[in-house]
Amino acid sequence: MPDRSFTVGGYLIERLSQAGVKHIFGVPGDYVLDLMDFVVAGPMDFVGTCNELNAGYAADGYARLNGIGTAMVTYGVGALSLVNAVAGAYAERVPLVVISGAPHSAQRKAHLPMHHLATDYRLQLDIFSRLTACAVLLRESDSACDQIDRAIATCLREKRPVYIEVPVDMVNKTCRRPKEIFLPPKPASDPEALAECVAESVALLSSAGSAAILAGVEVHRFDLQEEVVALLDVCGYPVASTVNGKTAIPEEHPQFIGIYEGGVSRKEVREIIESADCLLSLGAWFTDIATGGFTAKIDEGRMIVANSDRVKIKHHHYDRVYLHDFIPALKKALPQAGELYQSAAPHQAQGPFVPDTQAPITIDRFFQRLNHFLDDNMVLVAGTGDAMFGAAELHTNKPESFVAQANYLSIGYSLPAGLGVALARPEKRTLICIGDGAFQMTAQCLSTLIRSKRAPIIFLLNNDGYGIERIIHDGPYNEIQRWRYHELPAVFGGRTGWEVRTEGDLESALADAQAKPDELAFIEIIVDRKDCTTAVKRLGTAVRKQSTDA
Amino acid sequence: MPDRSFTVGGYLIERLSQAGVKHIFGVPGDYVLDLMDFVVAGPMDFVGTCNELNAGYAADGYARLNGIGTAMVTYGVGALSLVNAVAGAYAERVPLVVISGAPHSAQRKAHLPMHHLATDYRLQLDIFSRLTACAVLLRESDSACDQIDRAIATCLREKRPVYIEVPVDMVNKTCRRPKEIFLPPKPASDPEALAECVAESVALLSSAGSAAILAGVEVHRFDLQEEVVALLDVCGYPVASTVNGKTAIPEEHPQFIGIYEGGVSRKEVREIIESADCLLSLGAWFTDIATGGFTAKIDEGRMIVANSDRVKIKHHHYDRVYLHDFIPALKKALPQAGELYQSAAPHQAQGPFVPDTQAPITIDRFFQRLNHFLDDNMVLVAGTGDAMFGAAELHTNKPESFVAQANYLSIGYSLPAGLGVALARPEKRTLICIGDGAFQMTAQCLSTLIRSKRAPIIFLLNNDGYGIERIIHDGPYNEIQRWRYHELPAVFGGRTGWEVRTEGDLESALADAQAKPDELAFIEIIVDRKDCTTAVKRLGTAVRKQSTDA
Repeated sequence: MPDRSFTVGGYLIERLSQAGVKHIFGVPGDYVLDLMDFVVAGPMDFVGTCNELNAGYAADGYARLNGIGTAMVTYGVGALSLVNAVAGAYAERVPLVVISGAPHSAQRKAHLPMHHLATDYRLQLDIFSRLTACAVLLRESDSACDQIDRAIATCLREKRPVYIEVPVDMVNKTCRRPKEIFLPPKPASDPEALAECVAESVALLSSAGSAAILAGVEVHRFDLQEEVVALLDVCGYPVASTVNGKTAIPEEHPQFIGIYEGGVSRKEVREIIESADCLLSLGAWFTDIATGGFTAKIDEGRMIVANSDRVKIKHHHYDRVYLHDFIPALKKALPQAGELYQSAAPHQAQGPFVPDTQAPITIDRFFQRLNHFLDDNMVLVAGTGDAMFGAAELHTNKPESFVAQANYLSIGYSLPAGLGVALARPEKRTLICIGDGAFQMTAQCLSTLIRSKRAPIIFLLNNDGYGIERIIHDGPYNEIQRWRYHELPAVFGGRTGWEVRTEGDLESALADAQAKPDELAFIEIIVDRKDCTTAVKRLGTAVRKQSTDA
Repeated sequence: MPDRSFTVGGYLIERLSQAGVKHIFGVPGDYVLDLMDFVVAGPMDFVGTCNELNAGYAADGYARLNGIGTAMVTYGVGALSLVNAVAGAYAERVPLVVISGAPHSAQRKAHLPMHHLATDYRLQLDIFSRLTACAVLLRESDSACDQIDRAIATCLREKRPVYIEVPVDMVNKTCRRPKEIFLPPKPASDPEALAECVAESVALLSSAGSAAILAGVEVHRFDLQEEVVALLDVCGYPVASTVNGKTAIPEEHPQFIGIYEGGVSRKEVREIIESADCLLSLGAWFTDIATGGFTAKIDEGRMIVANSDRVKIKHHHYDRVYLHDFIPALKKALPQAGELYQSAAPHQAQGPFVPDTQAPITIDRFFQRLNHFLDDNMVLVAGTGDAMFGAAELHTNKPESFVAQANYLSIGYSLPAGLGVALARPEKRTLICIGDGAFQMTAQCLSTLIRSKRAPIIFLLNNDGYGIERIIHDGPYNEIQRWRYHELPAVFGGRTGWEVRTEGDLESALADAQAKPDELAFIEIIVDRKDCTTAVKRLGTAVRKQSTDA
């Protein structure tokens, strides 16, 4: 006789807990309240955000560092409000579990016109089927357990969002007790394809006069940092990372040369990557942003491009050769290099920072100062826009100490994502760099950070509008309302922030933030409207050019 | 030789202008900036909101009073952020045009991995195809004109959202000059079906000992207010409206008895509607909310249910009998009643309101006071929750002076919708009633109201959490962060709001708001955590019951 001592709600929460979820982000609503009772009664914390999009972004930021994240919302008005967060998680391969309550199964069967129903009972499941690697509707208690297991396993294996729809009557249905933690096995490469692929790679690399590695975000997502470092020790090649792969490997590594982003890169990085006779790309994506608006000058005929589930050499592919098998096999097959490439720490702050206390603060000086301020106990979350392109060149040393949605590029992502990061890494201090336009999108999440008693340092870069768009294409639509940003934390139940106009102001604010490690610090940096980093100027021009000349 | 003096961007803006669009709500992004240049150069105003969901809600509120509304956003991150607003517009039949920029057609054809692309180039169009009555992707300049015409005509005819995706290279392509304004003809009923349907209705109504009318939201959407009033003058029946049909007909009408919402209704309304031998429903929807959680006790066998595109009598249907034909035909066929029903104005404030200046303010007393405050030059926008159920029983006299998303029920809808209403009805004063939990969802839209120099009166009902959910099903997830709400307007560039704790405070705040008709007034009403209207208590119980007992 099967053990039926669990309920579907309890089973779901237990499985999420086993998979590593310690916090669930969400917004209540009547179709999901029964399930939320299991959350608040269970071992994990419920983090109520002000709206659902914020819950989705927060769970995404959390998942990037925790290995899995969860957003829980109500039907229709809830789930359809976080579609963009799920789309971003799909684009950037983030293991995000979206759980939506739903009307009673009997209401669905009778097609009753319930509140929060937009068109029909298939709509939401159909939309999430397009946006996730696995979308399930729980219909019956025993199959529900299998559906939950399949969804969570898919999420962990593929590093993509999944979706679980839970009709309100399913929550308290009895079901089997969950067995021990299941961890989906990594898929195994085809041994013969792997051998042939590695042999061809070794031949190419060995005959190349020069070689280099480009490390991308999949190295982080599939937890292959150590394997890459081991490979570096053998091959001795210089290594760059993409923007969204930043800190996939430690930046203190002596072979690390910096961030490669096509024509937007620093000159030295570009020269090494683009002039290599053979470029070995490990888990990188050649999107427009990663390549500086397709300004990368790399000949496909000189490339080995290894991604999570296949390897492309020159113009041919090896399917079923997985990154987690390819990197160690290549390391084993390559001869030990006589000499290892030696790079000066490319982003390390140079010399002491001497503030000119009366001088108006500028974006470049702010980032220079921040580079001196950063240490190994911080995680930097950078918002889309100048914040991200400036932050990309900072010395964030330790692996997994930089988070940005650097490919999908949702403005407004970083503040809620910073909430997720702060909860996933309580032992570190979270720094959030965000522009004023981006901040206005999801500003209420500042209140959730205060409520959660997190102590991030938030740098709000106020250049009075959508700065990056002014560079791409200016018009009155790039203007925004002026807020007294630094007064917001007090309205939300925290303490008033800092208003920084000079380098001296910045020093005072940073000293205060350091002196109060357990308090949220909100630092508004007011710069000139036209001030921006050189990198973003170059990128803006490239993006504009690709839009009109495509 | 065809006249090719227009561009696709210009054509689209011209058509929207001809259709009645005077304001476009949106958020810029690189794929839509070329198109936005046409907006700012044209006859309409661009209203930049802080995020896309707010643009969608604002355009929905605007469309309800203006007859058409438009939200314009960028690809991916933009359009996928307003999915919930479009779902709500679909559910509530709101004529909303969503315009999304998109990558260059050449990038699409080459499947280039552009920023803001989540999965593939079909995703967004597929999602909006499910959410709208017409979704088009402009691919070629001449067919683009036809596609634009078809989308806008569908929007106007069906009162549903439509979607137009504009690749960035299409905007400046030349195309034909738009001809004169096209107005989609109303569909014509099948004359024989109409005649039979009217004859059957007259027979039923004539033989009924008592009859009553329930007027719903479609009367407003399809602009049939005058036709219904003319019918009332002939038939003499008492008339109630649904919540989302409130003010579809003037509430000062002597036959108007109040709002019908099943078991949540006032006793007198319920008795007249449920005891009628024949109930004539005109443009109403029998959703769970409209029926007080399916507590309506109305026998289908005694009903004539006329909706926009068909009439159901007892258990059989007449297809192709349209509401706009049915109402006048029925009026013509019915004999003139000897006596017209006479109702006391059901929501009219009784006697003078005497404030007990020291007494703590309560929800019930607030709504009583508001009922005295309301006049015919105001439009009331009520947020989901107690704000809506309390406001439903207020005397909002003139047609189209009440706006609520009373069926789909997005928390957070009303503040941005109020922005749309304030712009659609500049000659009236907009009142927005909103709960604290709902306000936190879309709070930044307050800044857009200030920026747009609108002067609504915003009543923030602060009961320290998700009050309606506490009634349905309480738990710690119903708590929210406490904000100093009345300080927010000043942070956003306006003046500090009022903090109302007593009836005397409320008097001062209302007097100030009246004395300054050109300034936004923000009035925070602080009530007890457990305070709520009687209506919402009854509804909460009903919703809870239907969720668990379905």
